[in-house]
Amino acid sequence: MDKSEKLILAVDLGGTKMRAALVKGNGEILQVINRKTSAEKGVKDLLDRLVNSLNEILAQNNIDRGVIDSISIAIAGAVDVNRGVLTASPNLSGWVNIPLKQIINDTTGIKTHIENDVNAAAIGEYYFGNAGNVKHFVFIAVGTGIGGGIFIDGKLYGGFDGSAGEIGHMIIKENGPKCGCGNRGCLEALCSGTAIEREIRTLIRKKNLAKWVDFNENNIELITARDVGEAAQNGDELAKKVIDKAAYYLGIGMGNIINIVNPQMIISGGGVSRMGDILIKPAIETALNIAFELPGNTVRMVPSSLGHNAGILGAAALAHYNS
Amino acid sequence: MDKSEKLILAVDLGGTKMRAALVKGNGEILQVINRKTSAEKGVKDLLDRLVNSLNEILAQNNIDRGVIDSISIAIAGAVDVNRGVLTASPNLSGWVNIPLKQIINDTTGIKTHIENDVNAAAIGEYYFGNAGNVKHFVFIAVGTGIGGGIFIDGKLYGGFDGSAGEIGHMIIKENGPKCGCGNRGCLEALCSGTAIEREIRTLIRKKNLAKWVDFNENNIELITARDVGEAAQNGDELAKKVIDKAAYYLGIGMGNIINIVNPQMIISGGGVSRMGDILIKPAIETALNIAFELPGNTVRMVPSSLGHNAGILGAAALAHYNS
Repeated sequence: MDKSEKLILAVDLGGTKMRAALVKGNGEILQVINRKTSAEKGVKDLLDRLVNSLNEILAQNNIDRGVIDSISIAIAGAVDVNRGVLTASPNLSGWVNIPLKQIINDTTGIKTHIENDVNAAAIGEYYFGNAGNVKHFVFIAVGTGIGGGIFIDGKLYGGFDGSAGEIGHMIIKENGPKCGCGNRGCLEALCSGTAIEREIRTLIRKKNLAKWVDFNENNIELITARDVGEAAQNGDELAKKVIDKAAYYLGIGMGNIINIVNPQMIISGGGVSRMGDILIKPAIETALNIAFELPGNTVRMVPSSLGHNAGILGAAALAHYNS
Repeated sequence: MDKSEKLILAVDLGGTKMRAALVKGNGEILQVINRKTSAEKGVKDLLDRLVNSLNEILAQNNIDRGVIDSISIAIAGAVDVNRGVLTASPNLSGWVNIPLKQIINDTTGIKTHIENDVNAAAIGEYYFGNAGNVKHFVFIAVGTGIGGGIFIDGKLYGGFDGSAGEIGHMIIKENGPKCGCGNRGCLEALCSGTAIEREIRTLIRKKNLAKWVDFNENNIELITARDVGEAAQNGDELAKKVIDKAAYYLGIGMGNIINIVNPQMIISGGGVSRMGDILIKPAIETALNIAFELPGNTVRMVPSSLGHNAGILGAAALAHYNS
């Protein structure tokens, strides 16, 4: 069968949302079902809802399960791909050493792939995004946290244990802000969505800025990185300062990666990166300033083109990558 | 012919010294000739002395050039391995785009390999050092500068243009000390021999410490990183402080590499690393504190076992690597 004619059930299983979709092999998304993840209800409950969503898609589209190439799940957690086990997830409490691949496969009778969501997103860029035909690239996901995927010679580089690519936990500022991982000054602690939100809240408190408080119903905890990006876009000085600083650190991280990895392309994706030029443009400028001449001249710095469907397309891409 | 019976003319061509040696394929060094590099005398002069050294070795050992497997040159500079060209070298002024491989090959009639010295040292670790049979490792050379070589699946990882592995220019301290590369806060600017010397001189000046000045004939510019290491070993507080700080930064660099590359082994080599435990032990401690559990448990942190002959053995190893 033509690869583009495959039918894939793709699942983007995040900490708050679960999106199940029917995707064609060429990346065309035919249907999406959105559910809350509600991890607190337990593993079994979530697995039931996941399988129900998939069955719903099959029923609604009048598709026999025999026609489905595979179920491909991208999940926010650490995945042992060889064993098909979700080993741990900070976003899905209680999900420790879940043999997800086998469970879904046994329950549905359909071949199943699972992968960490950032790795899947990198694979998605390779099959459906800007990295088409680019064999050496680095994907940087800037969202709540910062993740990375390094592609070498058309394969996701896992290192010796499959744990390589933790770009977000490269320390670039000694004694910097505390990171969720326990270290200080990681890239993630300096330019993720969480870092941007922490930074603006600190500044608002310090300067007692009523405007920002009003803007968010008197609760600065409600301010999101997206709010900050929009405010910066609209000329707010404080927001601009926070975004510039985040961009500077992101640029250092990208520059380091250029000098260490010498990729053909760096793709920035993830929710926070979608605020666009205001963050990414100065980051790229800093990165290319840092980069040595040869790798700096080579590397193309591009945004992800997959937008809000990056998660689903990342999952769907697993069907190609693993075939 | 048995690989270990090969005879190799190995050359370690550094900024100040040129060492030419006769090496057996098993790494046994049969003879070494030391010369000054004297790059200021020009390219032709140095090439003549290099070829003369090799002829001298052949004559003294009564060896016919037909018996020599290859001439293998490790050189302190940027090398385009595919073309066999030394493209630039900060240590050999005037050496720009020298087709060294072809020149030596044409002059001697012997197959010639050339490679950057740090890459060659990493290759040396693979064939003659602690990385024997370890296919995924990172070599960090701590000397006047800091260099790196990343081995993936038994091959030196070059990235897209062959320029990957610039571990020494990973920025880990924003607005840190100025580095020779033009950036600020690179690993090299924080824990190379040059950084250690700069740091102790600054402290001596600030504190006006006569003892240290006496120790070095009243000229603090003569203090070497090795002096600082020895003083620290002997309990000097100032020296200890400088070495501890360098070790801390080196540890951050190593920790970042563990999390990004997930290697089986990190080998520290280079002249400054030979001050041993006083620098390397605390660096490893910091690195393993930073490292995530999985890659941290995997990685073995070991010193180079090749000592002062690392350069020659790195060069000699090119004969195996390229055959």
